[in-house]
Amino acid sequence: MKNFVELETLLIRNKIKPRKLVLVNAHEEASLLSVVEIMKRGYIEPTLIGNEPQILAILEAHKIRDVLKIIHADSDKEAAFKAVECVRDGDADILMKGFIQTSDLLREVVNRDTGIRNQPVLSHVALVEIPYLERMFMITDGGMIPYPNFEQKIGIIENAVHVAHALGVAVPKVALIDAAEHTNPHIQASLDSEKISQKTWKDATVEGPISIDLAVSSTIATTKKYAGKIQGDANILVVPDIISGNILGKVGTLFTEGKMAGIVQGAKVPIVLTSRGSTLDEKINSILLSCFIGNEES
Amino acid sequence: MKNFVELETLLIRNKIKPRKLVLVNAHEEASLLSVVEIMKRGYIEPTLIGNEPQILAILEAHKIRDVLKIIHADSDKEAAFKAVECVRDGDADILMKGFIQTSDLLREVVNRDTGIRNQPVLSHVALVEIPYLERMFMITDGGMIPYPNFEQKIGIIENAVHVAHALGVAVPKVALIDAAEHTNPHIQASLDSEKISQKTWKDATVEGPISIDLAVSSTIATTKKYAGKIQGDANILVVPDIISGNILGKVGTLFTEGKMAGIVQGAKVPIVLTSRGSTLDEKINSILLSCFIGNEES
Repeated sequence: MKNFVELETLLIRNKIKPRKLVLVNAHEEASLLSVVEIMKRGYIEPTLIGNEPQILAILEAHKIRDVLKIIHADSDKEAAFKAVECVRDGDADILMKGFIQTSDLLREVVNRDTGIRNQPVLSHVALVEIPYLERMFMITDGGMIPYPNFEQKIGIIENAVHVAHALGVAVPKVALIDAAEHTNPHIQASLDSEKISQKTWKDATVEGPISIDLAVSSTIATTKKYAGKIQGDANILVVPDIISGNILGKVGTLFTEGKMAGIVQGAKVPIVLTSRGSTLDEKINSILLSCFIGNEES
Repeated sequence: MKNFVELETLLIRNKIKPRKLVLVNAHEEASLLSVVEIMKRGYIEPTLIGNEPQILAILEAHKIRDVLKIIHADSDKEAAFKAVECVRDGDADILMKGFIQTSDLLREVVNRDTGIRNQPVLSHVALVEIPYLERMFMITDGGMIPYPNFEQKIGIIENAVHVAHALGVAVPKVALIDAAEHTNPHIQASLDSEKISQKTWKDATVEGPISIDLAVSSTIATTKKYAGKIQGDANILVVPDIISGNILGKVGTLFTEGKMAGIVQGAKVPIVLTSRGSTLDEKINSILLSCFIGNEES
């Protein structure tokens, strides 16, 4: 896939029925407007949870006359609880964070008794579009787990592969990013990568350690005579920690006028968890991406 | 500074006298040609160490008729030893790696009895030009120390600040890069950064943890109402480990048609240590950068 326009085309072509999205603490302009925009395009049916008078005031200010389903909540905790309840009851296919601390929302998601976690690891998957490369790829995990251990890395990969499958990539190429393409005993990440790439993977090609240029540029893979299965055509870039993931995502888009979408995987439904600094575009793209997840079985 | 063209202009304007460069194992086309090119521009007086017949064959093949100083060496070890000896004897201002393993060269550099180390830490400093940002900045360390500890981070910063001073930046802004701009107890790098930024720094402004976008984009620093001393105008980006540095350097230049130069600091003279995969441009820019170092006292 080249860009987010193609992503939306794919959504239309696959005739995915509108997804039920629940927005937690919808009394925030940017999140609310992104949800309304995607609703108007017909991809989602939103439920807004939060401070009802404030939500109505934002809708009024923007002259949004659509009748929207609103569930009032008095506190952050109540809003998060009710949103998670919607998912539990089958009333939501997508959970989206509005004006609430990430930790407050996730506390309810991972609650042992009432939560909706269904994978060993909750991880962040970013989908980026880089004009210069004319293609998209995923970065994981640049948002959730600071320093994943070996088992968590496996979970991170599984979550991202799931997203790739949902997007129609049958056997995604997964690159375990490092400073070079050989195992260096002084670099723990490279030792992990070697072990991970030796595992048997179903429906994915996993390779590493591999440097970023070989993973994303076929020109460089050819120039350097790289002999691996990934030839600059990786679909998923797995980074060793949150800082390198953050750098990769931000530099990849910032300096190139690229675009990004991000979701959290590992719960019963995808969680749209863009930050308050995210652009409207990023929120919209993240919702579009989340619309694919959970449809792959149908 | 905007780009490498300006860097070269600065070299001319400062009337820096030609630097004595010694190329270790000069019997490699790419390195040799980059040295000859910079010699022709009048910035260096090279000494070529290595296999003399092979060196002469390359010069002959490229019709290079200049009389070049050549010191024959029979082995990698001998070449590295002789090159380091040149530095020790004051016969070289710049050490450059040719067709030799980095480890074989560095072994002689750090030799306790005959070596030329003069700082606690040997670290890599990359200078990058990113057209989209219309300015240059340094990245350190993306090439030498896999996972620097606290003391090594201090050394890495000192080495890079020295380069900035040599380039005429009196009080460089040093950004300690992280996934966010607040200290996160789960992220060791952020704890280190907090401690490092609280130290008293002479002739440098050191700030962190700070995310990459706030460090390099003034637009984003303004949008996010970032209140720090760095407002997208960092001169030096300090990364927590070699992988994030490698990602930052490569992504910063790859996707943007940017350019890079790299030297190793911490020895008596700068060491040009570009890899065999480096372009001629990168080698040339690295030599240009190294010409500044050691001139700042004169």
